[in-house]
Amino acid sequence: MSLNALKAEIAKHYGTPAVVIDLDVVESNIARVQAMCDAAGIANRPHIKTHKIPEIAKMQIAAGAKGITCQKLGEAEVMADAGIDDIFISYNLLGEQKTGRLGQLLARAHVRVAADNAVVVEGLAHAGQIAGRPLEVVVECDTGRKRAGVETPQEAITLAKQIAASPHLTFAGLMIYPPETKMSETQDFLDTAHAGLRDAGLPTGLVSSGGTPNLANLFKLRGITEHRAGTCIFNDRMVMQVGLAEEKDCALNVFATVVSRAAPERGILDSGSKTLTSDPGRGLEGYGIILEHPQARIQQFAEEHGFLDLSACNERPMIGDVVRIIPNHVCVVVNMVDRLVVVRGHELIGDWPVAARGCIV
Amino acid sequence: MSLNALKAEIAKHYGTPAVVIDLDVVESNIARVQAMCDAAGIANRPHIKTHKIPEIAKMQIAAGAKGITCQKLGEAEVMADAGIDDIFISYNLLGEQKTGRLGQLLARAHVRVAADNAVVVEGLAHAGQIAGRPLEVVVECDTGRKRAGVETPQEAITLAKQIAASPHLTFAGLMIYPPETKMSETQDFLDTAHAGLRDAGLPTGLVSSGGTPNLANLFKLRGITEHRAGTCIFNDRMVMQVGLAEEKDCALNVFATVVSRAAPERGILDSGSKTLTSDPGRGLEGYGIILEHPQARIQQFAEEHGFLDLSACNERPMIGDVVRIIPNHVCVVVNMVDRLVVVRGHELIGDWPVAARGCIV
Repeated sequence: MSLNALKAEIAKHYGTPAVVIDLDVVESNIARVQAMCDAAGIANRPHIKTHKIPEIAKMQIAAGAKGITCQKLGEAEVMADAGIDDIFISYNLLGEQKTGRLGQLLARAHVRVAADNAVVVEGLAHAGQIAGRPLEVVVECDTGRKRAGVETPQEAITLAKQIAASPHLTFAGLMIYPPETKMSETQDFLDTAHAGLRDAGLPTGLVSSGGTPNLANLFKLRGITEHRAGTCIFNDRMVMQVGLAEEKDCALNVFATVVSRAAPERGILDSGSKTLTSDPGRGLEGYGIILEHPQARIQQFAEEHGFLDLSACNERPMIGDVVRIIPNHVCVVVNMVDRLVVVRGHELIGDWPVAARGCIV
Repeated sequence: MSLNALKAEIAKHYGTPAVVIDLDVVESNIARVQAMCDAAGIANRPHIKTHKIPEIAKMQIAAGAKGITCQKLGEAEVMADAGIDDIFISYNLLGEQKTGRLGQLLARAHVRVAADNAVVVEGLAHAGQIAGRPLEVVVECDTGRKRAGVETPQEAITLAKQIAASPHLTFAGLMIYPPETKMSETQDFLDTAHAGLRDAGLPTGLVSSGGTPNLANLFKLRGITEHRAGTCIFNDRMVMQVGLAEEKDCALNVFATVVSRAAPERGILDSGSKTLTSDPGRGLEGYGIILEHPQARIQQFAEEHGFLDLSACNERPMIGDVVRIIPNHVCVVVNMVDRLVVVRGHELIGDWPVAARGCIV
């Protein structure tokens, strides 16, 4: 089937905008990331926040991933329901509603969580108690991103002691999400924390690192035991920007239709911030690359309108044309839609529900 | 019930983040907008893209709205399924998948659509043909926003003639979405277009205007017959910025929990771009107002992390605190979640599914 025939078939079956993934590219991305982790001798624990689809998580595990990472408890529940048993929730879970659910989940699946403060650790004990077996907890450490994570190795050691002292918890190691530019600071943090843990008679446990851009840094840190990367399953403009993907590695395209051409240099796509989201990436210019018209600029959004600046285009799209867009940030796009349309090359395969879409709790 | 008791109950039943609407404020907003339209002698046709909930659309109609406006065909189908019969789709619908569905919808509900070009008009005839009765079409006119819409009155007249010439279509009038600062240009456009329509022997039909900020301009344009406003059902920081709402008029709050306080001047909310969205509003500073800590700044997002800058706060939130956030832009927040939690003052009522969520097609 030709590309134009595929576009026509997607428009006919699903209408546009349609969020489309190419399984050939997905499989190639899975194999590439697994090979990078294998080469570094590091376990691969892909972050499913990007795809939120159990079928894809299972493809990752079949290719060699040790387990998966989730950001929210609701995502983990969906994945456990689908039969995935080794799940790391890399997030502070807080409040009885969540620790209760976490206990239920722990009773039926192998689950590990992260924590960066004593209040969260205290609550997590509740989950272990409900499950009737200890919950593995890693200490989230901040090595420069200024997000979550304890700020010093000493705080990490203190929190590890608190975890180890609870009969309902097991201290399992450290989690980092290092800024790509701060590898030596991150190494110093880890080395100091590990020395302190040994001094305290605690095991050092695992070290979980993360981020698609940090796949380039797998060999730069000593002591990492596993890596969590999400976006690399599909890739996007942000990953292209850091040099870890090319256009051919971008498995997800938004198929959109040009619905208005009110002036020669302007056009409107039927995809706005409710499809492509207003995510600017890391300061990218505009809101996506149009594969058919790379000089076109998606310069602004209304909720259902993408504003095209066509002034730099030699050949301009016509009303009714279907175009393919690489979004700035795939993770937030997938989270907007109930299903992904699945193709292989130019062949339409079907669609998969985004089973963990909207699992914000 | 106290506010703290309400927070505890929402956290217990739903967990956080929770997107919460207060029916007292919703009802007051509905009454206020209806009164503004009534005072101006203009029909109220609220845009449901903000709430996407049939229950609320019915409240608007019960309060006097003539019908509703939808931006996408999928939204209109959901509303028709719920028994709403007078629906305007203010968007260019293009492609056989959509015109086929539109024909099915027209066969069971009173539907009107907008168009701004000949390709779309030609396709719309297909819908009228399927339904077995003519489809009402209004011509979208651009009076300065540079989005969709014909650019000149002459183009509007030409398109009106094309519509009127089709046995499957009826020319029903003009649609505008005027920039708030260009009322005299908009008036000139309308007057010229109306004169041309009369010269061509066509009825002038209705004039549909839109936008919550333009509620302040209802008396400034002659000839408007109906108004489409969406955001005013809940209001948000953007509406506050243009002076049409105060904090007390904001019916929607995101209830979020502080899950990390890694440093004295920083904190992390369990709500990031997958809940509050990266929508900057119209160039607003930060991503929302925290009612309990108005000096706190939500300065950055990860997908599930809201980065708090607390440096300007006298009293700083503690880990575990539940806070209420007025988002920059409510429409995109509602579209992220499967349900809204419904309260009345400090009493928890239940939850409503966001039935038309994710209807991008």
